[in-house]
Amino acid sequence: MPAPSPSLPSPTAAARPATQHRTLANGLTVLVEPMNRVRSAAFSLMVPAGSSHDPPGKNACAAMLCDLLTRGSGDLDNRGFTHALDDLGVNRGESVGASHLSVSASTVAENLPQALRIYRDLFRSPHLPEDEFAPAADGLRQSLRAIEDEPAHRVMLELRRRTYPTPWGLPTDGTLAGLDALTHADVVNHHRTAVRPNNAILAVAGHVDADEWFDLAAECFEDWEERPTPTIETGPRGPARDHLDHDGAQTHIALALPAAAYGEAGYYEAWAAAAILGGGMSSRLFTEVREKRGLCYSVSASLSGLKAGPGADAAREGRLFCYAGTTAERAQQTLDVLMEELWSLRDGVTEGELTRCVARAKSGLVMSQESTTARASSLARDWHHLGRLQPLSETLEAVEALTAETVSQYLASRPAAPPTALTLGPAALAWPE
Amino acid sequence: MPAPSPSLPSPTAAARPATQHRTLANGLTVLVEPMNRVRSAAFSLMVPAGSSHDPPGKNACAAMLCDLLTRGSGDLDNRGFTHALDDLGVNRGESVGASHLSVSASTVAENLPQALRIYRDLFRSPHLPEDEFAPAADGLRQSLRAIEDEPAHRVMLELRRRTYPTPWGLPTDGTLAGLDALTHADVVNHHRTAVRPNNAILAVAGHVDADEWFDLAAECFEDWEERPTPTIETGPRGPARDHLDHDGAQTHIALALPAAAYGEAGYYEAWAAAAILGGGMSSRLFTEVREKRGLCYSVSASLSGLKAGPGADAAREGRLFCYAGTTAERAQQTLDVLMEELWSLRDGVTEGELTRCVARAKSGLVMSQESTTARASSLARDWHHLGRLQPLSETLEAVEALTAETVSQYLASRPAAPPTALTLGPAALAWPE
Repeated sequence: MPAPSPSLPSPTAAARPATQHRTLANGLTVLVEPMNRVRSAAFSLMVPAGSSHDPPGKNACAAMLCDLLTRGSGDLDNRGFTHALDDLGVNRGESVGASHLSVSASTVAENLPQALRIYRDLFRSPHLPEDEFAPAADGLRQSLRAIEDEPAHRVMLELRRRTYPTPWGLPTDGTLAGLDALTHADVVNHHRTAVRPNNAILAVAGHVDADEWFDLAAECFEDWEERPTPTIETGPRGPARDHLDHDGAQTHIALALPAAAYGEAGYYEAWAAAAILGGGMSSRLFTEVREKRGLCYSVSASLSGLKAGPGADAAREGRLFCYAGTTAERAQQTLDVLMEELWSLRDGVTEGELTRCVARAKSGLVMSQESTTARASSLARDWHHLGRLQPLSETLEAVEALTAETVSQYLASRPAAPPTALTLGPAALAWPE
Repeated sequence: MPAPSPSLPSPTAAARPATQHRTLANGLTVLVEPMNRVRSAAFSLMVPAGSSHDPPGKNACAAMLCDLLTRGSGDLDNRGFTHALDDLGVNRGESVGASHLSVSASTVAENLPQALRIYRDLFRSPHLPEDEFAPAADGLRQSLRAIEDEPAHRVMLELRRRTYPTPWGLPTDGTLAGLDALTHADVVNHHRTAVRPNNAILAVAGHVDADEWFDLAAECFEDWEERPTPTIETGPRGPARDHLDHDGAQTHIALALPAAAYGEAGYYEAWAAAAILGGGMSSRLFTEVREKRGLCYSVSASLSGLKAGPGADAAREGRLFCYAGTTAERAQQTLDVLMEELWSLRDGVTEGELTRCVARAKSGLVMSQESTTARASSLARDWHHLGRLQPLSETLEAVEALTAETVSQYLASRPAAPPTALTLGPAALAWPE
């Protein structure tokens, strides 16, 4: 059977106007990608006020701000805000990252400008009602306690905390102790000092006109005053090897290894290595751990990274994260096989493995070009991580330039450091040396 | 502020050729929707061999068949199958429902025909290797045991089991007891008797030509022989009110109420009522339970249903499902508010609530038209539930015809039956009458 590699449309065939960008005088960057084959449009708006700005000991401040922001702003009260977006048919989400507070919205293209005006008020003139602090805190407390019943989620949160330095590794949704120490005044202060236009990013994709959106962005944000960038001090990391007792039937194993970060030399090689190790059903981990031995119900590896926001003394850090979930009695064998596979990855990858992973990447790129939400978030992500736009053709060239040899060279060149490792389950495991 | 309702593109403006269908002599139906504005294509292939065909006491047979099917077929061994799909850049998934085994695949349009040929072999000439039965069973056993550590997942599985009659309410991925009783011969027999072209559905959407796909479907499936439809006997339902002890910090509350099913009169009214009750951040449950009172970390309601496959004496059944997750100490109050809201829904909905829910539905329809994967699965679903294609214009008309009055009339006309109710947590709750 022939195994053709997917061919990608050339930029000309797709008739896609180039992405345009403009940075306002106050430092807010606007990115617009017209997609004239669709009727919808989406934006992603990132404001540099994430959980890394939480006051020391009050990890939960950004999460509480994110909740209170949606409880009324501008002319709208709590219900009015949600209703106005619903009336526009907006599919929306607000979330907290370490560096940014982000909102995303998508709907039919003609309704998106009005949605942006509503979110402008959310960031610029929120009510932050004091009498809603208590119910919002109760809701967040419930969410944080629920994680106790979600060990697969908890082990990855706790691994992040051990992998990255404080405050970058802290849970972006906060901690119970942080929430208990938090006051309404802290949240108001977080808004006053951290929510600002400098280093904010607005990315728009879909059935839109770039000039119209530059005008709209100016209307919404041009008179928003720049504020000083708060300083963020980087603290220690957690223990490199740890176990958390959890009374359940399962053991959850989580590992993190240093890898090239997005924007660094070797990133695409690191990405291919992660996919070959644990990205999907032809990956080594899936084959060796799950399919051949039936050792676990879930195993995967993926590349992720930290890009500290402005004002921080921390740098960019990439990581290869691995996870396996298994019954307690098979946990030791699962860990042993996992470590063996991690170790033998240093011997390199095969041409066949690389070809398959490149083919999947290329069809994935085509499909991501068809979603306005995916494009908007990808534009914003590129600007945050790279400080520039990365055209599809450039990503494609980088993927096509990969060979088994370059990936193997990358892997051989990495220092042989032990992973940051965490288990969560009824008993600790023996770590192979 | 103006609150315009999203305007939808007319079918002409979208320049979308109509969906076409053809049913082969053996009963396999092919549905094709060309979407000429995209470069990708997706198919959904449903074969009527779901878990409702599991032999009595051997609930896990379809799940094991689904795993073994992917371990080699036609000219390809286990690895060869996965590698061939990866080489085509295919994003894929195989899953088990009560009525069907389903596979979905998406990639750049020119590679999709070859992916269909691979899946033809998977269904028609699988190896079902006996020596891979044990590792596959180990893997499934791990997955089933993992659910013990996922109480939010477990409570909904167990509620389904109490809501629908056997075998329709049984877990589609099987049970540990069913798996223990299962042999390789059972799986081979399941393939021989239940995997068949009659009542199978192939739905394709994307950058495709309908005639080419009708030819391809004929090449792949025309000589596949029809088989007798196995009889499925419907047994009892579980207890209508129940509690499962679970030693954790949280209590999980799950409810199901009879509602109009997809394809029945009143379906769109039932859908609007579910959205108003618990679909998103302006819903009554979100507002009353989570936002105002901070009682829980997750609360939602949605409409779902059972459509028995061919050969069954069971009918179509719709349900409104509700879920709330909360700490044990707030569980009773959460349940009380939940039941109050369910009760007061019978008094009807407001114009404002309906307008918002219709606006969201309309923009959601536009966005679903831009995803080849969403379209393919929607076409297959319509054919299964309705036995015909439902054009977008018809769905749109039904949504636009909704008024607060028709929804309120629907709600008032439902018999006041107590819900099927299940709690999972450290202690049982008191049920309001």
